[in-house]
Amino acid sequence: MAEKQAGSVGIVETRTIRVVHADDAFKLVSGKTLSPIDVAYETYGKLTPAGDNAVLICHALSGSAHAAGLSSTDDKKPGWWDIMLGPGKAIDTDKYYVICSNFLGGCSGTTGPSSINSRTEKPYSLDFPMITIADMVKVQKLLLDKLGIKQLLSVVGGSMGGMQVLQWAIEYPEFVKSAIVIAATARLGPQAIAFDAVGRNAILADPKKGLATARMVGHITYLSKESMREKFGRVLKSADKYSYDFSSEFSIETYLDYQGQSFIERFDANSYLYITKAMDYFDLERDYGSLAQAFAKTKSRFLVVSFTSDWLFTPAQSEEMVNALIAQRKSVSYCNIFLPYGHDAFLLEPETLGSLIGGFLSTTIAKPKFDKASKLSSVKGVDRARRLRVDYELIESLIKPSSRVLDVGCGDGQLLLSLQHDKNIEAEGIEVDQKLISQCVNNGLDIIQRDIERGLELYPDNSFDYAILSQTLQTLKNPHLVFAELLRVAGKVVVSFPNFAYWRCRAELFFGGRAPRTKQLPFRWYDTPNIHFMSLKDFDDFCEEIGAKIEAKIPLIGNRRSPVKFAPNIFAEQAIYLTSRK
Amino acid sequence: MAEKQAGSVGIVETRTIRVVHADDAFKLVSGKTLSPIDVAYETYGKLTPAGDNAVLICHALSGSAHAAGLSSTDDKKPGWWDIMLGPGKAIDTDKYYVICSNFLGGCSGTTGPSSINSRTEKPYSLDFPMITIADMVKVQKLLLDKLGIKQLLSVVGGSMGGMQVLQWAIEYPEFVKSAIVIAATARLGPQAIAFDAVGRNAILADPKKGLATARMVGHITYLSKESMREKFGRVLKSADKYSYDFSSEFSIETYLDYQGQSFIERFDANSYLYITKAMDYFDLERDYGSLAQAFAKTKSRFLVVSFTSDWLFTPAQSEEMVNALIAQRKSVSYCNIFLPYGHDAFLLEPETLGSLIGGFLSTTIAKPKFDKASKLSSVKGVDRARRLRVDYELIESLIKPSSRVLDVGCGDGQLLLSLQHDKNIEAEGIEVDQKLISQCVNNGLDIIQRDIERGLELYPDNSFDYAILSQTLQTLKNPHLVFAELLRVAGKVVVSFPNFAYWRCRAELFFGGRAPRTKQLPFRWYDTPNIHFMSLKDFDDFCEEIGAKIEAKIPLIGNRRSPVKFAPNIFAEQAIYLTSRK
Repeated sequence: MAEKQAGSVGIVETRTIRVVHADDAFKLVSGKTLSPIDVAYETYGKLTPAGDNAVLICHALSGSAHAAGLSSTDDKKPGWWDIMLGPGKAIDTDKYYVICSNFLGGCSGTTGPSSINSRTEKPYSLDFPMITIADMVKVQKLLLDKLGIKQLLSVVGGSMGGMQVLQWAIEYPEFVKSAIVIAATARLGPQAIAFDAVGRNAILADPKKGLATARMVGHITYLSKESMREKFGRVLKSADKYSYDFSSEFSIETYLDYQGQSFIERFDANSYLYITKAMDYFDLERDYGSLAQAFAKTKSRFLVVSFTSDWLFTPAQSEEMVNALIAQRKSVSYCNIFLPYGHDAFLLEPETLGSLIGGFLSTTIAKPKFDKASKLSSVKGVDRARRLRVDYELIESLIKPSSRVLDVGCGDGQLLLSLQHDKNIEAEGIEVDQKLISQCVNNGLDIIQRDIERGLELYPDNSFDYAILSQTLQTLKNPHLVFAELLRVAGKVVVSFPNFAYWRCRAELFFGGRAPRTKQLPFRWYDTPNIHFMSLKDFDDFCEEIGAKIEAKIPLIGNRRSPVKFAPNIFAEQAIYLTSRK
Repeated sequence: MAEKQAGSVGIVETRTIRVVHADDAFKLVSGKTLSPIDVAYETYGKLTPAGDNAVLICHALSGSAHAAGLSSTDDKKPGWWDIMLGPGKAIDTDKYYVICSNFLGGCSGTTGPSSINSRTEKPYSLDFPMITIADMVKVQKLLLDKLGIKQLLSVVGGSMGGMQVLQWAIEYPEFVKSAIVIAATARLGPQAIAFDAVGRNAILADPKKGLATARMVGHITYLSKESMREKFGRVLKSADKYSYDFSSEFSIETYLDYQGQSFIERFDANSYLYITKAMDYFDLERDYGSLAQAFAKTKSRFLVVSFTSDWLFTPAQSEEMVNALIAQRKSVSYCNIFLPYGHDAFLLEPETLGSLIGGFLSTTIAKPKFDKASKLSSVKGVDRARRLRVDYELIESLIKPSSRVLDVGCGDGQLLLSLQHDKNIEAEGIEVDQKLISQCVNNGLDIIQRDIERGLELYPDNSFDYAILSQTLQTLKNPHLVFAELLRVAGKVVVSFPNFAYWRCRAELFFGGRAPRTKQLPFRWYDTPNIHFMSLKDFDDFCEEIGAKIEAKIPLIGNRRSPVKFAPNIFAEQAIYLTSRK
């Protein structure tokens, strides 16, 4: 991102197209019909002759078709997602053909409650039929048909836009090659419904003042407590003394007043009613029996992104979707981006999210090539590179071609890439570090951000042929639980760890009376990341105890490839085991 | 609590008393004056002849003087804190004389915006002067003067009631023996102000409908996301199909509608305006320069309680107060109660909170007697009791009489009690376990709930003469950081840990090639809570390295009192060290 000179799509125009004619009947989920339907949309970039680069952007509650660029030469404010859309940006309009349309029920050009009802020749207002996310998506599909789009490389959306993305992937599995679901949920919880209900109640009591109230409540939920404190604190608008009256005096009050007032000027109160109701109604579990069933027929690759500080559509809600996708053995990557901005983060920070989206799109259009030699030569330190090569080769020697492999704590995914390259495996990774996750996504790997100690339970039994746990067992709080879980989710587990009964360790404790420090265990007793210590014998006993079969055992010294034959529990510094359920 | 037969205070009557006469001028913080002022109040129990058992209850936003009992024989709904107040309950009306009054600006009997303005002979409405928490407390003081109360054993309050408690302890240090601050804060953050502002905006637009909206918003903030999901989920009110109209159809919507409507019937919209403004204005940092300065002159014992799921007045906000009290070296106990109910938890769950309040009150009125022999004999297992006695005696031998001692991970506080009894020390404890904290409070100890690894930074340098860290160092993630912190906050640190170079350990690793298991270290490599291993030599080296002086070193075997003289790093199973800064 940062290296490129990222630009603007320039002056853009919102066009309108009739997708349902007056004498057609567009059947809504509610059972009612609606016609005619016009759709406002913008496009950026060019469709390739092969038609393989179309990306649909779905907007959130208050968005519009105007996602990028400027409406005129003296327009000061670019489209709502200009940070992400443009030449050289994450969704690179030099590479992709991007479409964004105002959704059904909106008030920015697409047919909605403020449109003229042809029967009465007045605006529909509350006579507009109730709409759902599914209706919105169906109308978007009609638009794409009109535009001659035969397939979407990706559908992308944040918040309510993410709900549309989910609906797209489920309803049009053949049409959608990949889906990017940001700060979204498969169904609102009661708290979010409650906030929507407060807004609607206020609007129904008084459309104008109510819309301002609704927007104020909305804005509170879009920001995190933390970012609000950072941005506003308890600062007073102007005076340094309290006014002792009911005027807005704290900065947060005047900010919300402004948000409320400016919203009234650009938004239709009735649209707000219908759109929030569509959000409240959205419930994939209800519609498809369960979340897993909802995803059963999808064929897209999924990228799910949440933000740590989002308390409206929480990371837990994103994880629910990820778990359902995992349960269905779908291709999914997940990252919970650490940012303080709350739900609105996807509109504010292009770096991390942009790198994920950019990498996901480009590896969806074409799998990146893996050059093992150059990858290894880029590893810092000759010794480390050599050891890595030995590790790769030994682990590879244990894994059968074309198997399904989970690498737990996979780092930037080099081992998985190497296995993909040499053994044609199906690769999945688990990692906690956000940067490494982004690298995995950019390497085209399926990667889930998750703490190993609590994250394995959602994989069905035998999801994989192999799980790999390399040099990690001794750093876990509950190594026995994690290992047992891995044996459940994979037929075989490859595990490597340092041998605490290596002769240097023994000698240092026996003769020196000190906690051992060796080349493999170079840490001091108090700052070591290794919090459990075991020998090869300990591990053998442990396998016996939990009923794991040791299929292979490779005791090693340094970066020598040949295993230690004589008294390995004394002479091996580390070992690689291949284990399986008995 | 549970053992006792807890009862009701029975039929009670709200009385009203004039505390400021029409021709007096009660000066408010805003500079305006107000008169006359009437106060509605209830009392339960009897004042002792010594006058040492008066407890003032401060109510929250929508509360009243009617805190306990029933208003009449056919009254179905007891007072708002009946779960806590009554014979045999946490605030035991057989023992304490309890007073609760409606605060200034309220609408349940005390002078407020709905009272008649004697000048106009109409209700004040928006002509009522702006009031603050300090004004409310001043009026409460006038009431207590009228009732002949010379001292308060305690002031107790939750939420906005807790703000009044803080104000009481600060403004009347001689009058308030103890303060119980529940789910409160020393100042609202911008998010809470924003929610208040939304409510006020709605009321100013339309008093009735607006008050309902304000109450709905309020109720969302009083519940946790989790408890809302538990209680309402996405359940529909009646039908199993969506209605596709704008009626309230989710249970959460009808619940909020009901809360809004019933609030209109019993509450004055103008009172709501004034009270929320008083909350927004409350800011001890602003009023006193800093939170620490605010507490500088307080003389009360403090009990601060928060709830893990409270996102309105968060645990972090309670911790801020606790930290300021610690910085001022005040007597304070803190517990963050693990409950899912959100901010309202203090109105819902009497068990944990009741035990804390009950124990705190009874140990404020009289310090409990400590019977060392009987305490030790109640310890399970003769061996454990004997070892405890040896530990106590050896640690006691290292500590000078009348010193200030912090026991880190103090359990139920037995060691501190023993030291108090034998050496007359000033005791403070840190513990994470909620049950043990409650026991400490019931033992009359100052105890802070806190994770040792992040909780020490807020103690000023040299806060204590001694810090004790018994059999805990090896279980910490960052033992070196914690130890360094202890050396900073206390002149001397007493630390005990198992010796990993004990000969049985050495032999087991050297000859057996296994991770050692001994009587002192009976765990298997994978399930041990001990995540760092060190020998006496390691610890000696470590002290050298960080510049700590070893003043005494007591290597021990089993529960023998006499230290190991010969080759302790080989023969000692564990050791007690006394260390200090060089």
